[in-house]
Amino acid sequence: MMLKKSLLSASVALATMMSSAVLAAENVDLLITDATVLTMNADKTVFENGVVAVKGNKIVAVGDESLADDYNAKKVLDVDGDIVMPGLINTHTHASMTVFRSLGDDVPDRLHRYIFPLEKKLVSRDMVRIGAQLGNVEMLKGGVTTYADMYYFEDEVAKTVDQIGMRAILGETVIKFPVADAANAEEGIQYALNFIEEYKDHPRITPAFAPHAPYTNTTEVLQKITKLSLEHDVPVMIHLAESDRENEVIAERSGGKSPVEYMADIGALTPNLVGAHVINVDDEDIALLKKHDVGIAHNMSANIKSAKGVSPALQMFDDGLRIGLGTDGPMSGNTLSTVDEFNQVAKVHKLVNKDRAAMPPVKVIEMATIGAARALHMEDKIGSLETGKLADIIVVDTKAPNMVPVYNPYSALVYSAYATNVKHAIVDGQVLMQDRDIKTVDEDAVRKEALQFADKVRQTVIESGEIVQ
Amino acid sequence: MMLKKSLLSASVALATMMSSAVLAAENVDLLITDATVLTMNADKTVFENGVVAVKGNKIVAVGDESLADDYNAKKVLDVDGDIVMPGLINTHTHASMTVFRSLGDDVPDRLHRYIFPLEKKLVSRDMVRIGAQLGNVEMLKGGVTTYADMYYFEDEVAKTVDQIGMRAILGETVIKFPVADAANAEEGIQYALNFIEEYKDHPRITPAFAPHAPYTNTTEVLQKITKLSLEHDVPVMIHLAESDRENEVIAERSGGKSPVEYMADIGALTPNLVGAHVINVDDEDIALLKKHDVGIAHNMSANIKSAKGVSPALQMFDDGLRIGLGTDGPMSGNTLSTVDEFNQVAKVHKLVNKDRAAMPPVKVIEMATIGAARALHMEDKIGSLETGKLADIIVVDTKAPNMVPVYNPYSALVYSAYATNVKHAIVDGQVLMQDRDIKTVDEDAVRKEALQFADKVRQTVIESGEIVQ
Repeated sequence: MMLKKSLLSASVALATMMSSAVLAAENVDLLITDATVLTMNADKTVFENGVVAVKGNKIVAVGDESLADDYNAKKVLDVDGDIVMPGLINTHTHASMTVFRSLGDDVPDRLHRYIFPLEKKLVSRDMVRIGAQLGNVEMLKGGVTTYADMYYFEDEVAKTVDQIGMRAILGETVIKFPVADAANAEEGIQYALNFIEEYKDHPRITPAFAPHAPYTNTTEVLQKITKLSLEHDVPVMIHLAESDRENEVIAERSGGKSPVEYMADIGALTPNLVGAHVINVDDEDIALLKKHDVGIAHNMSANIKSAKGVSPALQMFDDGLRIGLGTDGPMSGNTLSTVDEFNQVAKVHKLVNKDRAAMPPVKVIEMATIGAARALHMEDKIGSLETGKLADIIVVDTKAPNMVPVYNPYSALVYSAYATNVKHAIVDGQVLMQDRDIKTVDEDAVRKEALQFADKVRQTVIESGEIVQ
Repeated sequence: MMLKKSLLSASVALATMMSSAVLAAENVDLLITDATVLTMNADKTVFENGVVAVKGNKIVAVGDESLADDYNAKKVLDVDGDIVMPGLINTHTHASMTVFRSLGDDVPDRLHRYIFPLEKKLVSRDMVRIGAQLGNVEMLKGGVTTYADMYYFEDEVAKTVDQIGMRAILGETVIKFPVADAANAEEGIQYALNFIEEYKDHPRITPAFAPHAPYTNTTEVLQKITKLSLEHDVPVMIHLAESDRENEVIAERSGGKSPVEYMADIGALTPNLVGAHVINVDDEDIALLKKHDVGIAHNMSANIKSAKGVSPALQMFDDGLRIGLGTDGPMSGNTLSTVDEFNQVAKVHKLVNKDRAAMPPVKVIEMATIGAARALHMEDKIGSLETGKLADIIVVDTKAPNMVPVYNPYSALVYSAYATNVKHAIVDGQVLMQDRDIKTVDEDAVRKEALQFADKVRQTVIESGEIVQ
């Protein structure tokens, strides 16, 4: 495991210095030293006593301790043996829903009987902003540096992401019934197009379409979005092969096809698509998803909480599909750091496969980092610590009692780590969180605004008895 | 839910004061105010703006805010709306094994091929002490105030429990092959008897027998321990109905009986017994466990990690058996706070029952508190916040971003809380942890000693290649 890729970059650095006859070290912005570096590169190289050098928003070198001498850094983070790894990528959430967390958790047919009515009553620009601010804080503190979101008023989410400094793919919802920011699917598409136009050049935000699901949109709308997404070169995020109701509606609409077959038939499976959940799929569906290079968000915690079942995520991962971990929204998951998914993903796949060796920790960490980057088709930019990649990096405390000792860092992360063990978080080269203190937003103010909104929720839907908890 | 039981105790207090013609408030040692109190009493009373009064090692009153005026407290903890609940009770662990955590996590036939050889090589008085110290710190920081332990050199564990101030049932292992502190089962029994004699009058420590499992002990030894446990009135803790190997060995020994039937037949099912895991049981087994009033430790996280299956814990709970949550040891679980079990217990039972309403959060919290107390036959002393019970109390932070907002405290605890959200911990009336700072032991020293031992483990079994990771 201890391949020293650093030798190459160190040699290049040395050659550069020699050729310019300058023996001084190269200037960088940030040097992380004394780290257990999990690169998550193709060889899964691990550097004990490792070093990561960052210049601007990019990683310029990753290697062993000898690398430190090659650089003059504005800022040095000596992490005293802690784990340094790629920032986590949450491939599926609805961040703004934090303000609804712990409402009606176990109501049957919850989406249609509880959540849609709740949203009809309470979703607004303010709610989306306030909820996203809280979700961002929770994710960043839990080591999530990039997330993929599906909700309404995504331009409000975008402002909060811009402010805190994280990276995100933000998908504006398109759905066939009236919602807070659109009277119908056509208006939803137009809202998305305006949002895409506004954010298409943002360095950290990728605007996207988010048709809610195959069964909550018409074939025509799904085809139109597919066409527009290819024209504008933006992602499409959708809930896919998730529920029995979806199966029934799509089977009726398509003469017995599965949701994935139907999407393939109407031309909606493309490399721009990211499907969330993907539980109800068979081998033919999986082959279609692979053929069309579709990304997949695996949300174990939400899927078992809702008793929907276990996605064949391990099979899809082993078959080479683009698949990464997601948390789903805070009414589903209910937390937003994929650290909380790690041990559930590892253990539930062992349980259903009746094999304690199934889904080993290294695969879980792959699905949380470079696998999740692949799911979002961003693996050339993020998901591993390699020279030239964007500097999205987290440091995980190994001194907390639950993390002591670490014989195997993957195992410690998957079976022992809490989201709160994430100590520092760096996005695009900026240290956004140091020693659990977020530098870019006022966490107390974010919480206070969320609690004020929660009072409004209590008055509106709980005390009125309008929506039964 | 808001039954005001406090009215009764307040009236009693008032009557007492009037009779002595003293209008002054009663002196207490500790008053917890402005709390969301989950009493976990029979009515599941919740007090918003609640108060808990503690005098000596006992709870003297629990009620609403009006109660505060009745007491003069040496120390007041205003918890600003945070959740106040009974200390968590971990019904099954092997605390000392923290020093082995993250070793060989997914090795097939792990107990016999990996753990027993590892223990043969490395278990010692020092190892047991060092590991237990770390386990204690981890548990207390995760809100565990009482735990049930099965290991070797339990007198060493006892010293660490005495020092940190927690409550514990400590079971000295009896097993038929040579182990670190006994050459055979007879020596194990003698070791246990000496330990029981030494600790039988300790206020917080209950010494116990811990025959490893039915299949790793003879019928004669199991019967002898049963007899001695009744004579000495001490608990017996055992791994029960856990593995396929156990099923096979016991079936062969008993002419086809299940482990539970076999234990009943040999007279080893008694109200002193606590069975850990209890996965491989049918309706007849469950009826036997109920008839003999056996306690049960449900260790979801460890059971699914090892792919052993899911215990019918929900059925046993609903049938009125004595059942509580446990973590199992840190090579199995791998963390030691039952907070980490909450969401897995809630979700995996939903998954296997195909019902999102199964195992609602309030049942999980019951199994973590008063249910766990019942499993250990300690429900008259701990497990709920009621007048006269021992003052084992925890406070859970509701301001952490993952906990905001709290519409339903049970749901917030089960689906959102991290062990690290536990802010204060009180055992036997003593504030052992305040603002996550443990008062009674030096956490840094504990960690350092554990890391030194881990270096020895690395040298002995990893670098030598003697036990393959």
